[in-house]
Amino acid sequence: MADQADQAGQAEKTAKAGQQAEKADRKAGPDERHGLSRRRLLGTAGAAGAAGLVIGGGGALAAGAAQEKRTPLSGVGSASVPFHGKHQAGIADPAQACGHLLAFDLAPGADRKAAAALLRRWSATAAELTAGEAPKGDDTGIALDAGPSSLTVTFGFGRGFFDRTGLADKRPAALEPLPAFTADALDAKRSDGDLWVQIGSDDPLVAFHALRLLQKQAGDTARPRWQMNGFNRTPGATARPMTARNLMGQMDGTNNPKPSDKDFEARVFVPEDSGDWMAGGSYAVVRRIRMLLDSWDNLSLERQERVIGRRKSDGAPLSGGTETTPVDLNKVNEDGSLAIAGDAHIRVAAPESNRGAAMVRRAFSYHDGFLDDGAPDAGLLFIAWQADPRKGFVPVQRKLDRGDGLSRFLRHESSALFAVPGGCAEGEYVGQKLLEG
Amino acid sequence: MADQADQAGQAEKTAKAGQQAEKADRKAGPDERHGLSRRRLLGTAGAAGAAGLVIGGGGALAAGAAQEKRTPLSGVGSASVPFHGKHQAGIADPAQACGHLLAFDLAPGADRKAAAALLRRWSATAAELTAGEAPKGDDTGIALDAGPSSLTVTFGFGRGFFDRTGLADKRPAALEPLPAFTADALDAKRSDGDLWVQIGSDDPLVAFHALRLLQKQAGDTARPRWQMNGFNRTPGATARPMTARNLMGQMDGTNNPKPSDKDFEARVFVPEDSGDWMAGGSYAVVRRIRMLLDSWDNLSLERQERVIGRRKSDGAPLSGGTETTPVDLNKVNEDGSLAIAGDAHIRVAAPESNRGAAMVRRAFSYHDGFLDDGAPDAGLLFIAWQADPRKGFVPVQRKLDRGDGLSRFLRHESSALFAVPGGCAEGEYVGQKLLEG
Repeated sequence: MADQADQAGQAEKTAKAGQQAEKADRKAGPDERHGLSRRRLLGTAGAAGAAGLVIGGGGALAAGAAQEKRTPLSGVGSASVPFHGKHQAGIADPAQACGHLLAFDLAPGADRKAAAALLRRWSATAAELTAGEAPKGDDTGIALDAGPSSLTVTFGFGRGFFDRTGLADKRPAALEPLPAFTADALDAKRSDGDLWVQIGSDDPLVAFHALRLLQKQAGDTARPRWQMNGFNRTPGATARPMTARNLMGQMDGTNNPKPSDKDFEARVFVPEDSGDWMAGGSYAVVRRIRMLLDSWDNLSLERQERVIGRRKSDGAPLSGGTETTPVDLNKVNEDGSLAIAGDAHIRVAAPESNRGAAMVRRAFSYHDGFLDDGAPDAGLLFIAWQADPRKGFVPVQRKLDRGDGLSRFLRHESSALFAVPGGCAEGEYVGQKLLEG
Repeated sequence: MADQADQAGQAEKTAKAGQQAEKADRKAGPDERHGLSRRRLLGTAGAAGAAGLVIGGGGALAAGAAQEKRTPLSGVGSASVPFHGKHQAGIADPAQACGHLLAFDLAPGADRKAAAALLRRWSATAAELTAGEAPKGDDTGIALDAGPSSLTVTFGFGRGFFDRTGLADKRPAALEPLPAFTADALDAKRSDGDLWVQIGSDDPLVAFHALRLLQKQAGDTARPRWQMNGFNRTPGATARPMTARNLMGQMDGTNNPKPSDKDFEARVFVPEDSGDWMAGGSYAVVRRIRMLLDSWDNLSLERQERVIGRRKSDGAPLSGGTETTPVDLNKVNEDGSLAIAGDAHIRVAAPESNRGAAMVRRAFSYHDGFLDDGAPDAGLLFIAWQADPRKGFVPVQRKLDRGDGLSRFLRHESSALFAVPGGCAEGEYVGQKLLEG
């Protein structure tokens, strides 16, 4: 994601931490509130959340609060992203340092009512965890001490969900199966799924804590189908928020649509006045894309940069300028060749090459060791968000499949498409308009 | 690790960041040094390191330096742990947020000379990377922008190494195979190995960058045998440095030996005056310990705390006090029962129960999705450090194997033992005394 998007995201997070502090203020008992000014509570927002997580320790809350006055929780732990809102979290906000993608299939016999009960449980727990509160009922304690650490939980529905719940007439046309691409080498076991959960957090224990609770709540209603773990840079490892690098070493996401773009909402979200249950929702294309890193690393720096169309060091397009300079696809070198080669990734993927089609890519890198032949089992958990995949991922991937110089170094090993409903208000649950509509 | 150890570690890191700044100062050109006071350089130590990593970008170094003046690299990215020293890094310093464990077997035909050349290459690259410098020769660029982020690289030798290099007469007696334990369910393919590399960093891309380079350098000399990835809490997710929690939600490592203990060196390191090639070295026992989390989570909080002997919320021993209060193994409850149960983990593992035996546990959690039966494939990459495993891990594990209430919830799925030589000075390489002695 580009600097601006990241910075906007950070600003938003800070604002949200403030809201969170207000919430903590409302909930804190007189002992905790006493002597803490509004301003200090802002600083200790996450600390209050963390103290709230303490279980089974008599007096631990007060002791924790006293402690936090001395050492307020830093930005990483205290940042929180509200669960409730018109859109679900985990779409327009920056990708976190740790991500889990989980797909479930409905168990035989699980019906619409059982699915509704599960989404209600999941939504309630996600709201608690993202606010840094202890979940009601059993808690594993894995996230004790930590703040919410920008936790987000996002829920989606796959094609199969609608058949198995008797809701086939409500399945959106946009959820039609993705076409086959020549570069695909898909593993069915790691593709598709009735239900999808995306978990992200800047702390791995906070992310794992959420994963365990949600998995257990699936109980007899839904069974794990596949799961993938990914990562991004740790906050603070670079001097300022920067566009992410992928495992090829290349900056990835510079030209991503930004929440500040005037057409961002229209590109990413189903119109809120659409009148159907997907209003305010989005569609997620999930692809596990293995990178053939041994082949890639054998290319010279110059050839790698030609394949991408950007300089590796700083992400500047080969047509000149800095990372954020608009790409000049028509720029010609002194020898008459195109500055951005005909099969350069940024040319083939550009909205100008795809009748304006664009999507938000919110990705995590993955690395699961090595394959039997010794090659790294590593690459990108690519998640593309758009209002309609038939106008986003599908046309762009068709073009990339034919003409992208980068595709020689990639294998799409799994694929899924999910309808991700709009967000819900307090007391509601995600998907309620579908399941009770 | 206990607070004190963590805080000592942080203080040490800060001091080292200062040394790093001095080094950057020595290497920076007049343009970069101009106008930067010593004090500011301390703040921008990592920034200088990051700028040093920039490749192929004309003028990028100066531009980067100008930028960093505004936004100095934070603690996470700028912290560095020196590669050179009397001990290898990655033993006495705190475990980082991301860890990779790699084992290699020497390729058929690879002899002592080839092994020496590999260790020389590896040591040179590890020294560059841990200082935040660009590695000489090809670079993948994956760590561009980031500071060293507390990167450590640690090298060790397994039993097989000595036979295959004609050095059987130099194999230490302490490297004898670990005995079998009743709770073991070991996978030979993920156990043992001729060579071992432990990589740790607070940033996952910095860690992956090191892994890729070192794997490629193994070339035709050594082939990957197994690899495991682990994690710990992200720096800043808690309000202050705290003892790590494991995936059972329990604080883990409170009673770990601390570098400030008077017997720490003797417990962990082979005496420097031992006269042999292992002087200043240590022995690493590596166990992949899967946690039976579904069974564990079914226990009540009270029963979990009895199995461990500590309160889950704050780590205080059930004999009373706070986390750092010494455990009173003789304390009796009002009903006459032992406050710390007879089979409580902290009783059976305590040095008092093992004739003083203790080791430094420097662990990472792991989580690789779920197994065929749906159970989480998650647990602890347990790494125990000691001067002699026959007086550290072996007697303690024998006792735990028979009497630890926690062992019902654990499966040891892989096991390895490595001789980890002392550190080396600049211009030398790890293992040189063995390979050229």
